[in-house]
Amino acid sequence: MAFHAVWLQLTQVNLIDTEPARVILISLFMEGDPMFEAAEVGRSLAKEEFKQLEPEIHRLCLELQQRLRVSGKALVIIVSGVEGAGKGEVVDRLNRWFDTRDVQTHAFWDETDDERQRPRFWKFWRSLPMQGTVSVMFGSWYTKPLVDAAFDKIDEAELDQELKRIEELERTLTADGNIIVKLWFHLSKSVQQERLEHEAKVSKFKKSPLLEEFSKNYDRFAEVSERALRLTDTGFAPWHIIEATDPRYRDISVGDAIVARMEAGLAEESKSRPQEEPSAGFRDFQKIHDVLSAKSSQITVLDTVDLTQSLTAVEYENRNNKLQRGLHDLVWQMYNAKRNAVLVFEGWDAGGKGSAIRRLTAAMDARLYRVIPIAAPTDEEKGHHYLWRFWRHIPRAGYVTIYDRSWYGRVLVERVEGYAQPHEWMRSYQEINDFEEQLVDHGVALFKFWIHISKDEQYRRFKEREKDPRKQHKITDEDWRNRERWDNYKSAINDMVAHTSTAHTPWTIVAGNDKKFARIQILETVCNGLQRTLFPEPKNSK
Amino acid sequence: MAFHAVWLQLTQVNLIDTEPARVILISLFMEGDPMFEAAEVGRSLAKEEFKQLEPEIHRLCLELQQRLRVSGKALVIIVSGVEGAGKGEVVDRLNRWFDTRDVQTHAFWDETDDERQRPRFWKFWRSLPMQGTVSVMFGSWYTKPLVDAAFDKIDEAELDQELKRIEELERTLTADGNIIVKLWFHLSKSVQQERLEHEAKVSKFKKSPLLEEFSKNYDRFAEVSERALRLTDTGFAPWHIIEATDPRYRDISVGDAIVARMEAGLAEESKSRPQEEPSAGFRDFQKIHDVLSAKSSQITVLDTVDLTQSLTAVEYENRNNKLQRGLHDLVWQMYNAKRNAVLVFEGWDAGGKGSAIRRLTAAMDARLYRVIPIAAPTDEEKGHHYLWRFWRHIPRAGYVTIYDRSWYGRVLVERVEGYAQPHEWMRSYQEINDFEEQLVDHGVALFKFWIHISKDEQYRRFKEREKDPRKQHKITDEDWRNRERWDNYKSAINDMVAHTSTAHTPWTIVAGNDKKFARIQILETVCNGLQRTLFPEPKNSK
Repeated sequence: MAFHAVWLQLTQVNLIDTEPARVILISLFMEGDPMFEAAEVGRSLAKEEFKQLEPEIHRLCLELQQRLRVSGKALVIIVSGVEGAGKGEVVDRLNRWFDTRDVQTHAFWDETDDERQRPRFWKFWRSLPMQGTVSVMFGSWYTKPLVDAAFDKIDEAELDQELKRIEELERTLTADGNIIVKLWFHLSKSVQQERLEHEAKVSKFKKSPLLEEFSKNYDRFAEVSERALRLTDTGFAPWHIIEATDPRYRDISVGDAIVARMEAGLAEESKSRPQEEPSAGFRDFQKIHDVLSAKSSQITVLDTVDLTQSLTAVEYENRNNKLQRGLHDLVWQMYNAKRNAVLVFEGWDAGGKGSAIRRLTAAMDARLYRVIPIAAPTDEEKGHHYLWRFWRHIPRAGYVTIYDRSWYGRVLVERVEGYAQPHEWMRSYQEINDFEEQLVDHGVALFKFWIHISKDEQYRRFKEREKDPRKQHKITDEDWRNRERWDNYKSAINDMVAHTSTAHTPWTIVAGNDKKFARIQILETVCNGLQRTLFPEPKNSK
Repeated sequence: MAFHAVWLQLTQVNLIDTEPARVILISLFMEGDPMFEAAEVGRSLAKEEFKQLEPEIHRLCLELQQRLRVSGKALVIIVSGVEGAGKGEVVDRLNRWFDTRDVQTHAFWDETDDERQRPRFWKFWRSLPMQGTVSVMFGSWYTKPLVDAAFDKIDEAELDQELKRIEELERTLTADGNIIVKLWFHLSKSVQQERLEHEAKVSKFKKSPLLEEFSKNYDRFAEVSERALRLTDTGFAPWHIIEATDPRYRDISVGDAIVARMEAGLAEESKSRPQEEPSAGFRDFQKIHDVLSAKSSQITVLDTVDLTQSLTAVEYENRNNKLQRGLHDLVWQMYNAKRNAVLVFEGWDAGGKGSAIRRLTAAMDARLYRVIPIAAPTDEEKGHHYLWRFWRHIPRAGYVTIYDRSWYGRVLVERVEGYAQPHEWMRSYQEINDFEEQLVDHGVALFKFWIHISKDEQYRRFKEREKDPRKQHKITDEDWRNRERWDNYKSAINDMVAHTSTAHTPWTIVAGNDKKFARIQILETVCNGLQRTLFPEPKNSK
């Protein structure tokens, strides 16, 4: 995975002295591929919680199905993801939740002669639901391109062409009144391995050779899936990446995703009709949804960060001096190589963004960097697309731009405070990914930091600020208000990482409770990244 | 061009005897690239007509600009197309029509250091209009990919990736409230040549070497442009392909396109607000628009067909026998090679579709073909996307499917009769192109015939049918009603050819007044096409 590679490379270069164990931890806190880390946080549901929520979802599915029947719309549910995640069980569950008279399940795993002899999408068109009905796709139009790309039968450009075609199909169907729910079930590498081994033991049958292939190629498959999910994660047919380790959590998440998408899709249809009160079902759903998001926000990608990590003053001084010297040189080398760097800082209020940025810029030549603080947009900025104000500040070749807050406001504060509508911030993930891909394609070294602190630590810092006359200006009523929405922000941050942390544009979540530790983690990440930009590792070392 | 190539190849194979001059005419009635033929029909406006329409458009532009100012929307006008088409004059005209305080013109032709050092789209983002204002893009995000592809600096997959990015940008802007008008100015090869030579003579300056390059590479440039236009011809930002030979027709068409797009775009915004009566301006616009479409439908791609072409009975018998024998063998060869063929028949009522199809099938083994008559959709078909019913009939490998009427009903009868909304049939061009590309990519030999007859000839045949008791069932009130909308259909057919006739999926417009001639033209086209499918010409002969 990306983070292992960084570390290994880091130990091979001489720029930064390596220290044992504890520093290794800094760079290795993520196990999985960036996009999927948010689905490796260990979410689960207790039996009692499941027993309470499941019948509610069952009832809502039936009610929504009834509304679907009269709506002239149709529902497509795509069940996909890694092997061993229990996709078959999910399909069974769906067939229990819905009235199966109007549900057709289509499995796409072997190809008939009939299918091979026609264009690839023929079999999918045949399986599309008629209005008022439901198609459950077990495997889908994603399966073959993913497998072909993972086994290098097609190259990246060909994969992209396939994905473009898929996006067009989904757009076509959505425009025609289909509601598409795309479910991706994820397991971490180690959990998948365990599962497959367990299955091999208990099963009377020999382990399928393809399964073995898949588990051997976990990394490559994750890489390809990540690209596919990112490029097809559209506002009209977004992906739901579901952590599948706990079957109860998995199934309730499926229910939540389906109910939410159906609610939204069916409501859209009635735009032209007089506004109706939300149905009783809808209010019920909000309850379940709230329970589940509360549940989800209890464990997010943020909780995988060990906030107890700290450095002594001596350790800090030592490392800081070395890293700052290294950074100073690297920034000049970037200038000479005509390469840009863009650093994005996001984080909790009082997380220490400002001081972390100052520690970085202290080490750079003042001619070579620029800090862009993002506050409320100007009139002119409001008059353009929300990305416009960020495009205008893209640095020329050779310079560093540091964004103190960024375009991620769209899916954080604008989402949580309701400034942007769901359909607006949902399509922003794709817009942001596209924007960042253009930066990276142009050769920009992009860093994205979320500075994480615990809720208690924030409280301590807020109180401290209130006491210190020199810091009172830094704490406002708004900070306290934001704090009340801590859990909503946690969910939003988790979704943000799930949708926008890719192999080329990963998020670094900084353990911020100890400021010294945080500063070193940031400095180190930037030095490593610039080092890699200037001296890329040879292809075959991968 | 495609049609030259066909003919040349045809003369090299022995399957079909060649006859001189007259038969050559059959295959050579098109000069340009398929998509652009509809912009090579010789449209023009008289001076008086122009003098009457131009001030009206000027007034409407000012009125719509006022509405734009308060709407929170913005207008992007993209001016592009072949060299020598007078794009500069169009930009001048636009600056006269609009109040230039809120209009910015951006020319993209040379690149500054500032631009080169940032991602390619940076300069475009900088040039986007603020809400309430207008940006005229002289050259645009299309220019560089087209030039690079035409000069083989990037390959097809890279071009596609660029186009995908452009589509995403345009979608992003549209979703954010921008109205995008994309104008493509076309000249036929010979007209362009004349222009450039004339310019070289009158200009004191040396002819630009790039211009010379372009005119030398006209064919390649047309091929690349066709692909680019097809892949980015979306419902939310459709292309307007404008015949630029006559400056008066060109400029009024520009005005018509802008006013129509602005009307539609500004109306959309007010969906949430109470319905308003169309403004006086709107009613005026409808008048201009009607005048112009009447004008356009006077000369369409159909009028380039020489309907006087005919064959004597002896000529017909001779050729028919040979071609039918050839077809019989070719269809068996297709079966053995496991190749499919799909034939689409569209045409005027009483154009002779049925008898032409019977002449074809008479020559085929009954096991190998299937005729699908397309009438009103079944309930099940109505319950799906309109393309669903056509996907289901895609033949297996080795077979021939003949569609008697087809998916083009969407942009013909459904458009003209108002069964589909403008935003629905406008996005259908892209859906249809995508569908047909999938067929062709799969190896299907696709033929699309429009059987054209004159309005007088139709009248003669209708009357004949009414007289003949064996034919009376073939003529209904609906046929007479359709006939009243002849001009609307003519416009729709012209647009259909402009948007869906591509190098790989060209339309063949059949000269149908003489039934014998029509049948031979169809038989010959099919034989040539199958021949090419089975024995493709080597790449380098191109």
